[in-house]
Amino acid sequence: MIFLDAAATTPVRREALEAMWPYLSGEFGNPSSHHSLGEAAAAALAEARSGVAKVLNCRAGEVTFTSGGTEADNLAVKGIALARQAAAPSLNRIVISAIEHPAVEESARYLERVHGFAVDVLPVDGDGMVSVEALRAVIGPKTAMVSIMYANNEIGTVQPIAALAAVAREHGVPFHTDAVQAAGWLTLDVRALGVDALSISGHKLGAPKGSGVLFTRGRLRVEPLVHGGGQERAKRSGTENVAGAVALSTALRLSHAEQPEQAARVSELRNQFIGRILATVPDALLTGHRKQRLPSVASFCFPGTSGESVLLELERLGVVCSSGSACAAGSDAPSPVLVALGIAPETAQTAVRFSFTSTITDAELEQAAAAVETAVGRVRNLASPQAG
Amino acid sequence: MIFLDAAATTPVRREALEAMWPYLSGEFGNPSSHHSLGEAAAAALAEARSGVAKVLNCRAGEVTFTSGGTEADNLAVKGIALARQAAAPSLNRIVISAIEHPAVEESARYLERVHGFAVDVLPVDGDGMVSVEALRAVIGPKTAMVSIMYANNEIGTVQPIAALAAVAREHGVPFHTDAVQAAGWLTLDVRALGVDALSISGHKLGAPKGSGVLFTRGRLRVEPLVHGGGQERAKRSGTENVAGAVALSTALRLSHAEQPEQAARVSELRNQFIGRILATVPDALLTGHRKQRLPSVASFCFPGTSGESVLLELERLGVVCSSGSACAAGSDAPSPVLVALGIAPETAQTAVRFSFTSTITDAELEQAAAAVETAVGRVRNLASPQAG
Repeated sequence: MIFLDAAATTPVRREALEAMWPYLSGEFGNPSSHHSLGEAAAAALAEARSGVAKVLNCRAGEVTFTSGGTEADNLAVKGIALARQAAAPSLNRIVISAIEHPAVEESARYLERVHGFAVDVLPVDGDGMVSVEALRAVIGPKTAMVSIMYANNEIGTVQPIAALAAVAREHGVPFHTDAVQAAGWLTLDVRALGVDALSISGHKLGAPKGSGVLFTRGRLRVEPLVHGGGQERAKRSGTENVAGAVALSTALRLSHAEQPEQAARVSELRNQFIGRILATVPDALLTGHRKQRLPSVASFCFPGTSGESVLLELERLGVVCSSGSACAAGSDAPSPVLVALGIAPETAQTAVRFSFTSTITDAELEQAAAAVETAVGRVRNLASPQAG
Repeated sequence: MIFLDAAATTPVRREALEAMWPYLSGEFGNPSSHHSLGEAAAAALAEARSGVAKVLNCRAGEVTFTSGGTEADNLAVKGIALARQAAAPSLNRIVISAIEHPAVEESARYLERVHGFAVDVLPVDGDGMVSVEALRAVIGPKTAMVSIMYANNEIGTVQPIAALAAVAREHGVPFHTDAVQAAGWLTLDVRALGVDALSISGHKLGAPKGSGVLFTRGRLRVEPLVHGGGQERAKRSGTENVAGAVALSTALRLSHAEQPEQAARVSELRNQFIGRILATVPDALLTGHRKQRLPSVASFCFPGTSGESVLLELERLGVVCSSGSACAAGSDAPSPVLVALGIAPETAQTAVRFSFTSTITDAELEQAAAAVETAVGRVRNLASPQAG
C-alpha cells in the first residue's frame, strides 16, 4: 500500500510510542497528585511542555495541551472572542477566511448563533490566497479576534501569516492561526510569525490521536471550553493526557529537527509528482497555489470523473488517498473550499488530494502517478464506454 | 509501595493496553476516511461504542466518546442546559448538589456567569447525602437540567440516583449524573437508574488518561462544546481517539464483569480497614456515609494533625494516598465537600482519603492501617513534642 493520505492522519512515530510508553504503564500518576507517582507524571508533562515551547519559540506557560487540533481551534476562537467580549462588550465581530477548517468555521458560527457575534469572512482568490488588503479593509474597532489558517488541508495553499498577523497587531486584535497542517512542514516560530495563538494536532505529525496544543501569547485571556479542576493554568481543566502530551512533544521536536531537509526534499518530489500527473492526465486541474503550498500536498480535479470513483480505483491499485477533508469524506456536497476558489461544483466533485508523510519516496510517487493515469482512464471509460 | 489513591487515577489494565495497541501502531486510520485503513478504525470505534453501550444498557448511538470525565461533565451540564434554553428561553435555572466535582460545579458557574442562569445548590447532610425532598422542593418550571453526582470522589458517599432521577422525570427535566467514581463499582445501567445523561472517565477504571464517555438518552439535544467536522453524531467534533476509546471500552467491560464479586470483596476489606483505623486512632473521624459509600473509598479526618503532614509520613512508610481530590491537591483551602458536610475548616484540613483498586489485598490494607497509626502518631508528636 502507498499511503498518500497523511493530511487525514499519520502513523505514530516509533520514537513517540517509546517516549509515551512509560506513561501508559508504570508511571501512571495523576500530575495533580502530590506524591512521588504524581510528581513523576507532572515532571514528564513539564518536560513535554518545554519541548513544545522550544519548537514554538515561546514560554512553556504559553502552551496548553488539548485533546486535539479541533479542540485547540475551538478554544482559540471561542475562548479569545468570549474573553475579549467579557472585558469590552462592544467587541462583537470576528474575522475568518472562506477556507477555514470546520473546527474554526463552526466555532465562528457558534459565536454567531449563541453569542450574537457577526462573522466577517475574507474571500480567497483562485489559488486559495487570502489578501492582506482584504483583512485591512474588514478589521475594525469591533473585531474581537481574527483566525486565518496557516496552510489549507484540502489544497495546501499557505497564507502570508506574518503579514496578516501584522495587520491584526496594528489594530490591537489577537490573531489565531490553525497550524494543524503546517506543523512539521513550515516554521512554527510564533515570534517570527507574530501570532497570538496557534493550534497543532498530534496525530497529523506522528503522535497518537487525542493530543493537541494551543499556544496563547502571554497574558492573553481565554474563556475555557472545559471548566473544572483548573489544570493547564485553568485554561483547560481535566486530568492531562500525559502519554499523549509526551508523544506529541517528541514527534513535534523530531519533525522540527528534520524539517529543513524534509521540506525541501518532499517539495521537490511533490513538484515532480504534479508534473507527472499534468503530463499524463492533460486536463487535470491542479488546485491551490502553485508555489505557496505545503510540501506534502498535491491536489487535483479530474474533470469528467467522480472523485469517489477515482479513489476506489486507486485503492484497488494500492494507492490510498482521499477526496479532500477526511471530516467531509462520503459527503455528496462539493467541497466548500474548492467552491470558494471559484471552481464549479461539478468539477469540485472530481477532487482528489494526495498528501505525503515525510518518509515518502520518489519510487512510491512514480508508482502512484502511474496508478492515477490508470484510475482516471478506467473511470472515464466506465462513464462513457463507447469512447473506450 | 501500597497504592491507595485509585480515586485520583488507576494503572492501565494490561487487557486495555493490548486492545488499544493495534490502533497506536499498524491500524492508524482516521475513522472518517473512506478507505480500508479508515474503515478499520471506524469498525474498531463502533465495536468500542457497542461495548460501552452493553454495560450502560443503552444504544450505541447514545454513547459519545470524549477526552475524559471532565469534558463529559462539561458537555452534559452546559450542552443540555444551553440546548434546552435555545428551545425554551424561560429555562434559566439548573440544579446541582453542594458536593459536585469542580467539572460540574464550574460548568454551572460558567452558565451563571456567561449565560445568565441561576444555580440551585442542594445541601447535603452530615453524611454527604442529598435528599429527594430537597430536589422536589427546588425543581420547577424554569429548571433546564439537574446534575447530581453518583458517588463522591472525596468521601465516597453514594446518592440515591434512581429516586432523584425519578423526581426530575416527573417534572420533565433531564437528569445527569457524574459517574466517574461510581464506574467499576456500582451499576451503570442507565435504564434502571432512569438517568438521561451519565459521565465516565477512562483513567479512573483502568484505561489511559484522555478517554471518557458521555451517555445521553435518545433524542436529548446537546449543544456541543467542540464544534467542527461533526464526528460523534455532531455532539463532539474532532478526530476520535480510537485507541483511547478501545481501551476504555475494554476496561469498562472487564470491570463490569468483575464488579459483583469485587464490589463485595472490596467492601468487606474497606469495612475491616475502617474498623482498624477507628480502633488504633480513636479520635479519627470517618467522613461520608457509613454504608451508602463506594466499596473503594475510606476517608477520615485526623484531628490535631495536618492532612499533608500525615500524607508525607505515609509516603515515607510506603503508602501512597491523598488528602482528597487530586484536582485540589496542594491547595491550602479546606475541602468545600467536607465543609458542606458541616465539618469545621480546621478539621477538614486534616483529611486523608484512601481509595482502592480492585486488586487491593487484605495484607496491603493491614500494612497500611499500621502505617496510618505510626504516621498520625509521628505528626502529633511533632506538633506537640512535650507530649511525646
